[in-house]
Amino acid sequence: MQQKLRKAFKQQLLYKKIKMEKAGKEKFKVTPWEVSGKVDYNRLIKEFGTERISENMLKGIEKLAGDLHFLLRRKIFFSHRDLNWLFKEYEKGNKFFLYTGRGPSGKTHIGHLVPWILTKWFQDKFNCNLYFQFTDDEKFLFNPELSLKDTKKLAYENALDVIAIGFDAKRTKFIMDTENIKKLYPLALKVAKKLTFSTVKAVFGFTNETNVGSIFFTTIQSAPCFFEDKPCLIPLAIDQDAHFRITRDIAPKLGLRKPALVHSIFLPGLTGSAKMSSSIPGDALFTTDTPKQVEKKVKKYAFSGGQPTVAEHRKKGGNPDIDISYQWLKILFEPDDKKLQKIYNDYKSGKLLTSELKEILIEKVKAFLKKHQVAREKAKKQLDKFILKD
Amino acid sequence: MQQKLRKAFKQQLLYKKIKMEKAGKEKFKVTPWEVSGKVDYNRLIKEFGTERISENMLKGIEKLAGDLHFLLRRKIFFSHRDLNWLFKEYEKGNKFFLYTGRGPSGKTHIGHLVPWILTKWFQDKFNCNLYFQFTDDEKFLFNPELSLKDTKKLAYENALDVIAIGFDAKRTKFIMDTENIKKLYPLALKVAKKLTFSTVKAVFGFTNETNVGSIFFTTIQSAPCFFEDKPCLIPLAIDQDAHFRITRDIAPKLGLRKPALVHSIFLPGLTGSAKMSSSIPGDALFTTDTPKQVEKKVKKYAFSGGQPTVAEHRKKGGNPDIDISYQWLKILFEPDDKKLQKIYNDYKSGKLLTSELKEILIEKVKAFLKKHQVAREKAKKQLDKFILKD
Repeated sequence: MQQKLRKAFKQQLLYKKIKMEKAGKEKFKVTPWEVSGKVDYNRLIKEFGTERISENMLKGIEKLAGDLHFLLRRKIFFSHRDLNWLFKEYEKGNKFFLYTGRGPSGKTHIGHLVPWILTKWFQDKFNCNLYFQFTDDEKFLFNPELSLKDTKKLAYENALDVIAIGFDAKRTKFIMDTENIKKLYPLALKVAKKLTFSTVKAVFGFTNETNVGSIFFTTIQSAPCFFEDKPCLIPLAIDQDAHFRITRDIAPKLGLRKPALVHSIFLPGLTGSAKMSSSIPGDALFTTDTPKQVEKKVKKYAFSGGQPTVAEHRKKGGNPDIDISYQWLKILFEPDDKKLQKIYNDYKSGKLLTSELKEILIEKVKAFLKKHQVAREKAKKQLDKFILKD
Repeated sequence: MQQKLRKAFKQQLLYKKIKMEKAGKEKFKVTPWEVSGKVDYNRLIKEFGTERISENMLKGIEKLAGDLHFLLRRKIFFSHRDLNWLFKEYEKGNKFFLYTGRGPSGKTHIGHLVPWILTKWFQDKFNCNLYFQFTDDEKFLFNPELSLKDTKKLAYENALDVIAIGFDAKRTKFIMDTENIKKLYPLALKVAKKLTFSTVKAVFGFTNETNVGSIFFTTIQSAPCFFEDKPCLIPLAIDQDAHFRITRDIAPKLGLRKPALVHSIFLPGLTGSAKMSSSIPGDALFTTDTPKQVEKKVKKYAFSGGQPTVAEHRKKGGNPDIDISYQWLKILFEPDDKKLQKIYNDYKSGKLLTSELKEILIEKVKAFLKKHQVAREKAKKQLDKFILKD
């Protein structure tokens, strides 16, 4: 099976290369540690071998949940693995648990919140336990600049943002890899015994010069999938899929269930990057930014779909599909579909100017962060309740 | 430095191959997981790049300790790394701690006891703390037949034998890898970040089909070297050296001390194998064997240096250097040099028959195991005192 998996990946890579050359398409890269180029999400579905979330499935989820989160409705979560199976099991009375996480390499930016928001929705609607993993080991192993002390400190900072999202303390447990390793390690070992270097080389693009910690790491990210003897659902950005392709390949060999996945697109960065990045100047908006910083960043950096002059904009209209302010409203800040549609139409027709669109976003972000920052401050006192005690 | 290390290993391998071809020497293999062929310990010193323990060093140790254990006196421990440095530090007042261990893949046989006996002597003479590691993770990862439950169970069985050796409970802590992983993991990660697949491939002979747990494992065996901010001494059989070549290469990059090592030869198996092996029928004598089993095994299997007939033996004499009964007396069961010398002379001259030599051994082994088994039974109640609590 591992050989089959590797062969499939190699074929996919070759197929991708040929197709791209034929089509003259832009190159892009999506791995857990690097996202670059203009990401084509339709191609990712094919290349990763996932499935598109259909309207029918959304109807099914809406029926079970009572409503449908706009992140699903708007196809921000666009792809899945085994979601049909998960909900069939649910209907049979087999509840699922949730698992997601954060690689603590820096401050939390608003792009990180997207999977967490949907995870909270699932917790609320389906009454689920959630394991939230902070991979302080991963970020230490993959980042030459960070010490373990750094990544653990960042993890605790990030954890405040997770709590601020509003997860239920009674049903949510935080896993800090180096703290909870005793629970993770035996499961990681079982995965590790079935996983060869060839496979991680093919899946992650590792080389002989990759450090042995990085080579082993994916097994630690697999472990929480098996924390409960129930189906597991992982809401995540699509770049993390590779870890769980491996997990899903190995789980049956261990007599364990494959986790189900639901994949989101990335929140684009202010400067128009495919995935918001703290290392591109002006690209990221952090959860701790002040109202002034929000205003300044959006005005200065938010990539615009508008025309060069007001006159031209009024005449030709703007392009909301490439406009970051519009994208952010769609992905995070405007839950009302009608209001969003009006903004779309007005911007496209030229009625709404870029500066006005940016003002709408700025007010929304300020209101969001004001509330978030109050919750984040309170979270400092709640942290202990969330930490998994072995 | 890692590149340098790899290059050196490759050169050694090439050099070994050429030399062996020239000399028509027998092939042998010594890795932590495989010992085969007729082991040439002099060549191992060259190939591994260790140092021979000199008479001068032994005098130095004797001066500090008050006496000298026969395992040192008889050069059963024949090789070292940085032992001079360790005792210089000791003389300056910098005490050292001890670290050794056991891979729990089966029942304890008497070959396993050799490094433990010298370790106890060091503990007694130099008043040292000892960390004794049980690598239940390793034996799970490297052995397709064993579950984690199996290796942990075996580790607790083996631990009784370790306690029976007589270690001081106040100064000895047992590390069970999967139990004490929280203490091991952060140190293992630091080593892992500096260690590439290329290096473990060259040092251990791994391939692309090696599982990622095995690739990572050596870092877990490195970790206890850094448990105390003191020099560390590891008594071990020479096959384990590879792990600590890596540790010693990486330690300075982490601002940590290189562990010092003292290497033993292997106790040969009953059938004459270079290293006693539980998987060769009749080769191993277990610490739980009954007096009857001891008698039967020695009589049936102990490879003899004697002549085919009594008459011939009386005339030509035997060869104690290849006789397993003599070797066992030398390595484990006859601490008195004069008595041992007499046995040597008598066997060599033909005065002592193989059957008589075997009788001497059988009585010694029976007495040893009688005492050991009483201590091992008592150990069941002492185990808890030895276990490291995180």
